Amino acid sequence: MKISFNNDYSEGAHPSILKKIVEKNLESNIGYSNDDYCKQASKLILDEIDCPTSKVHFFVGGTQTNFTFIASVLRPHQAVICCESGHINVHETGSVEATGHKVISTPAFLGKVSIEEIDKCVKHHQDEHMVMPKMVYISNSTEIGTIYTKKELIDLYNYCKENNLYLFVDGARLGSAITAKNNDTTLKDFAKYCDAFYIGGTKHGLLFGEALVINNIKLEEDFRFIMKQKGALLAKGFLLGIQFKELFSNKLFYNIGKHENEMAEKIQDAFVKKGIELYINSQTNQIFPVFNEKQYKKLEKKYLFSVWEKIDSKRIITRFVTSWATKQEDVDNLINDINDL
Amino acid sequence: MKISFNNDYSEGAHPSILKKIVEKNLESNIGYSNDDYCKQASKLILDEIDCPTSKVHFFVGGTQTNFTFIASVLRPHQAVICCESGHINVHETGSVEATGHKVISTPAFLGKVSIEEIDKCVKHHQDEHMVMPKMVYISNSTEIGTIYTKKELIDLYNYCKENNLYLFVDGARLGSAITAKNNDTTLKDFAKYCDAFYIGGTKHGLLFGEALVINNIKLEEDFRFIMKQKGALLAKGFLLGIQFKELFSNKLFYNIGKHENEMAEKIQDAFVKKGIELYINSQTNQIFPVFNEKQYKKLEKKYLFSVWEKIDSKRIITRFVTSWATKQEDVDNLINDINDL
Amino acid sequence: MKISFNNDYSEGAHPSILKKIVEKNLESNIGYSNDDYCKQASKLILDEIDCPTSKVHFFVGGTQTNFTFIASVLRPHQAVICCESGHINVHETGSVEATGHKVISTPAFLGKVSIEEIDKCVKHHQDEHMVMPKMVYISNSTEIGTIYTKKELIDLYNYCKENNLYLFVDGARLGSAITAKNNDTTLKDFAKYCDAFYIGGTKHGLLFGEALVINNIKLEEDFRFIMKQKGALLAKGFLLGIQFKELFSNKLFYNIGKHENEMAEKIQDAFVKKGIELYINSQTNQIFPVFNEKQYKKLEKKYLFSVWEKIDSKRIITRFVTSWATKQEDVDNLINDINDL
Amino acid sequence: MKISFNNDYSEGAHPSILKKIVEKNLESNIGYSNDDYCKQASKLILDEIDCPTSKVHFFVGGTQTNFTFIASVLRPHQAVICCESGHINVHETGSVEATGHKVISTPAFLGKVSIEEIDKCVKHHQDEHMVMPKMVYISNSTEIGTIYTKKELIDLYNYCKENNLYLFVDGARLGSAITAKNNDTTLKDFAKYCDAFYIGGTKHGLLFGEALVINNIKLEEDFRFIMKQKGALLAKGFLLGIQFKELFSNKLFYNIGKHENEMAEKIQDAFVKKGIELYINSQTNQIFPVFNEKQYKKLEKKYLFSVWEKIDSKRIITRFVTSWATKQEDVDNLINDINDL
Repeated sequence: MKISFNNDYSEGAHPSILKKIVEKNLESNIGYSNDDYCKQASKLILDEIDCPTSKVHFFVGGTQTNFTFIASVLRPHQAVICCESGHINVHETGSVEATGHKVISTPAFLGKVSIEEIDKCVKHHQDEHMVMPKMVYISNSTEIGTIYTKKELIDLYNYCKENNLYLFVDGARLGSAITAKNNDTTLKDFAKYCDAFYIGGTKHGLLFGEALVINNIKLEEDFRFIMKQKGALLAKGFLLGIQFKELFSNKLFYNIGKHENEMAEKIQDAFVKKGIELYINSQTNQIFPVFNEKQYKKLEKKYLFSVWEKIDSKRIITRFVTSWATKQEDVDNLINDINDL
Repeated sequence: MKISFNNDYSEGAHPSILKKIVEKNLESNIGYSNDDYCKQASKLILDEIDCPTSKVHFFVGGTQTNFTFIASVLRPHQAVICCESGHINVHETGSVEATGHKVISTPAFLGKVSIEEIDKCVKHHQDEHMVMPKMVYISNSTEIGTIYTKKELIDLYNYCKENNLYLFVDGARLGSAITAKNNDTTLKDFAKYCDAFYIGGTKHGLLFGEALVINNIKLEEDFRFIMKQKGALLAKGFLLGIQFKELFSNKLFYNIGKHENEMAEKIQDAFVKKGIELYINSQTNQIFPVFNEKQYKKLEKKYLFSVWEKIDSKRIITRFVTSWATKQEDVDNLINDINDL
Repeated sequence: MKISFNNDYSEGAHPSILKKIVEKNLESNIGYSNDDYCKQASKLILDEIDCPTSKVHFFVGGTQTNFTFIASVLRPHQAVICCESGHINVHETGSVEATGHKVISTPAFLGKVSIEEIDKCVKHHQDEHMVMPKMVYISNSTEIGTIYTKKELIDLYNYCKENNLYLFVDGARLGSAITAKNNDTTLKDFAKYCDAFYIGGTKHGLLFGEALVINNIKLEEDFRFIMKQKGALLAKGFLLGIQFKELFSNKLFYNIGKHENEMAEKIQDAFVKKGIELYINSQTNQIFPVFNEKQYKKLEKKYLFSVWEKIDSKRIITRFVTSWATKQEDVDNLINDINDL
Repeated sequence: MKISFNNDYSEGAHPSILKKIVEKNLESNIGYSNDDYCKQASKLILDEIDCPTSKVHFFVGGTQTNFTFIASVLRPHQAVICCESGHINVHETGSVEATGHKVISTPAFLGKVSIEEIDKCVKHHQDEHMVMPKMVYISNSTEIGTIYTKKELIDLYNYCKENNLYLFVDGARLGSAITAKNNDTTLKDFAKYCDAFYIGGTKHGLLFGEALVINNIKLEEDFRFIMKQKGALLAKGFLLGIQFKELFSNKLFYNIGKHENEMAEKIQDAFVKKGIELYINSQTNQIFPVFNEKQYKKLEKKYLFSVWEKIDSKRIITRFVTSWATKQEDVDNLINDINDL
């Protein structure tokens, strides 16, 4: 049995979350997230972001959250801008296009959008023969583990507001981003500086679940209709409430993030010390060492991790991911083996 | 705290299913239902239906299962026929239409389609100015708790094959249908006599989950792409595998069905004995007593159940639902209160 | 060569319209209906309806007009109500559903909607598990040649406004409706009492063309984007401007309507005099005599007309349609043959 | 009144085509392209391409043709590849995405796709988390007036067949491409080396109209249903038949192409002689001189032409387009003015 650094959704739930599910198992609750746990979890999140006017909706998965929100907000001719590596552009099987909307991709810089490139794109789309850009989508942390600074976020939001665009933040790994060493954003910032964002649970200690927070209250209208239509109203929605309530109790959200980032940092440091190249210098729970064939084969025997991209016949970018479930001893073992490479 | 007969998805999971989730919680598994539990659960289901060539796909919810399968199978001009009370026609917020397809409704007879009405509909759609009916959708048990006989199923399937239509069975409550007293169908029949069907887990003891079985192998092509696009590939898909594996071990699937039907029967018998009219004579886990205002108010104080339809100012059709979680003592209490009405 | 009463789109264009196309053939004009003829034609229409704040958009065909407008206006969960015989419900191959929206059909009374039925439908759709009715679609004249009275139109509009619904009038045959003998509506009324309507040209003397008039200016936003997306911005849009300009000059719009209605009336009177049953008593350019086999066969040898519906083995509802191109002598011939039946 | 070199759809129809429309104006014809003219026009086209098994469908416009065909052929998860400058990627307001399909863009080389880039794209899309490329779209002549050689076409087609992709050719300006000086393809080649292509009429002497030729007969199934659904079955379809019949009589199709190319060549030669840079060396009816501010202002007073792109504050790429309607004397005038620049 290999030790897995494959991703952050390989195990069940953080024990204290699973414990709550077990405790409440025989309780009767109302369906479709109309229950008390969802209300309490919403309250905890709204307190945390200090924005009582925002609204929280609980989803099962990230792809579903992305296309449901985008489809709810855009009119048929409107498009969403994201950078080339954006998850909706690449890894969601055209789910946004399947709801009728073009995803316009702009060049990515360390996995992030650039206002300059967005502006070129906006200026290029001028009349009714072209789609109308109406939303900017970013992910934080990004698909390659980088994070947005507070200044970047504010600048982007200001640009969006000046140009009549919505800003939407995919936070599938927001918990890791917000607890990263060099991070200067807080959940409160995401309440202030975007129209909507979601807090990923699936990759952050829940069995499943994403909490979409809609700050721009105009975008809230009839939202649950669209959720139901897209298959996104979970019958036993209270399971989402129970889990998010626990995640936002006792700092668990932050503690999980800190743990996964610490584990990742140790591993990354070991790679650096060993002189192994990094595709990117990460502060979050995904790290990207570049191996030669021999290094790859050696580690691959004992550990599960993924090939990100083959640069050429000699060099392979790989990805190691840590999570709430990553054990110190497994990290220690890995570091020993890195030292022996 | 009222005693709930509100629906069959008010509680968590059957204890033996939840136990398995807890047991496996720290195991690392591959994502997106590519894990061993999903393989084992598939195998158990295929053994049960005695049709090794069918394919099983695991979903989180019923609406999602319905529109994903229908969207995968139909070309843009093709439509699905269902009866007026069919779930996709009424209670899924136009999710099928949102994927581009018309739902054509035909009159319902005790919640079921009639071949005669389907045939009228098929004959009426003749040229390119009209949609082309290409699929018949039924639910079993139906939205009002009735079930299809084996003869009805075979006749319908034969009609469909003669008329170049697919037959799709929504089995959100198939477990209750198949264990009903007067039922003469088996899971094997659904492997033989329809193109695809699903076995509901959400309403049958799972935290969540539906197992779609595709018998017509032509309809299997690239199906996982469509699942991903529709947000229906669960990241921690192994949770579905673990649950369905347990459901199809030790006859649990049947035992849950029998329990919920028995509980429902006892309650229904009590209503009948008391002289209370039934909207429909049910053999499954949904029953529909018709109350006057006084009866309604009396029971409503202590029990949770739903108003199905107000016939007039005096009579209210109500719905009581039983589940794996329904306790004998709660049923006894209810029967006592029925006797006192 | 049979004499055609098959429909009102069998010939080219009314001679005075074609003359204008020929006259302007070598002129250079700007594309996509940004030309002067479109401006002038819009002006003439807005003068005619006495509503300078409305906006006019020119389309090639009716199906295109219907689905483009509906898709532009509705959000994903919203649906359009029409009566069972409504063109979008039956004869446009699910074009509205293809844009993602449910068409909810209500019973038809002489081809018309009933407020009572619409109200039942609206009251039935209550929560996020069902689509939200947001528009009522009617056609005038209807698919069976009947017309709405001014009172019916106003009542319907008032109902819609009270219930937060848009009212949209498909006027593919509005020219015939508005010049019918017993008609009491004017084009001005359609500017006042609906959110949008269109004036059919294809069935009213043009080579092709429909003029959509949007009265509710909120629904005008970005409309040309949606037109382009749906393939509805004609490159040589000036052809639409030239034609509609002529149609709204010299009362041609009304004169065509009067001619086609007069021709139809004469034929219908002959049927009545002869004792031939009418499926419906029409005042517009479609009439529906009911034949026995012998009568059908006799007329069918010499005339082109369509079978509407076979009532039983003995009686056939047929449809005869007149147009700007219907000649007096052909009508005289037909009347003679009717008298000889 | 400026002299227009603005585009090839500024005037009505070629006189011999308009003459036919006028001649047949009072004839009665069956609707929806089921008439004899459409049959005859199809026959002429199939004779011309020497491929009697292909099928011809007549559309009103190009955007409509593109999205109707693509939507008919692709399953929901499948995508179409085109180069960045492809019309469907840029100038059709997301019409393909509106039918649910991603348009994947690859780098353009002189307006054309490259097999190498397509292959990279195909290899990149590997599993169900990404869309599946299933069609390659090219335009010929391209958006910047270049054309594909026979070898390029054959190589591309072979690549497509080896990789299970359809090849679709947008021939909005195929008439100009095929009559270009250095062209070595014929209409027959497009019958052999693609799955479907269309012959543009709107930009080639018709009032409107595009003739889609489906060579891959598997893609023909139920195609008219999709046409109707997308608003693409013209009621007076015979107008399309009449026009295409004339276009494919007496070599008119080729003669128009030759005329427009000759006119363009003369103008381009004058620019070259004058030392004015070309954005691209064109052999078809679109040419792209690069002006400085002074040159632009001078010509712009007297002629209508479009700004393609501003390179910098000093240089403007412009586009001049010729058509069947371009007069020798206007070209002579322009050349004189070019010489005087």
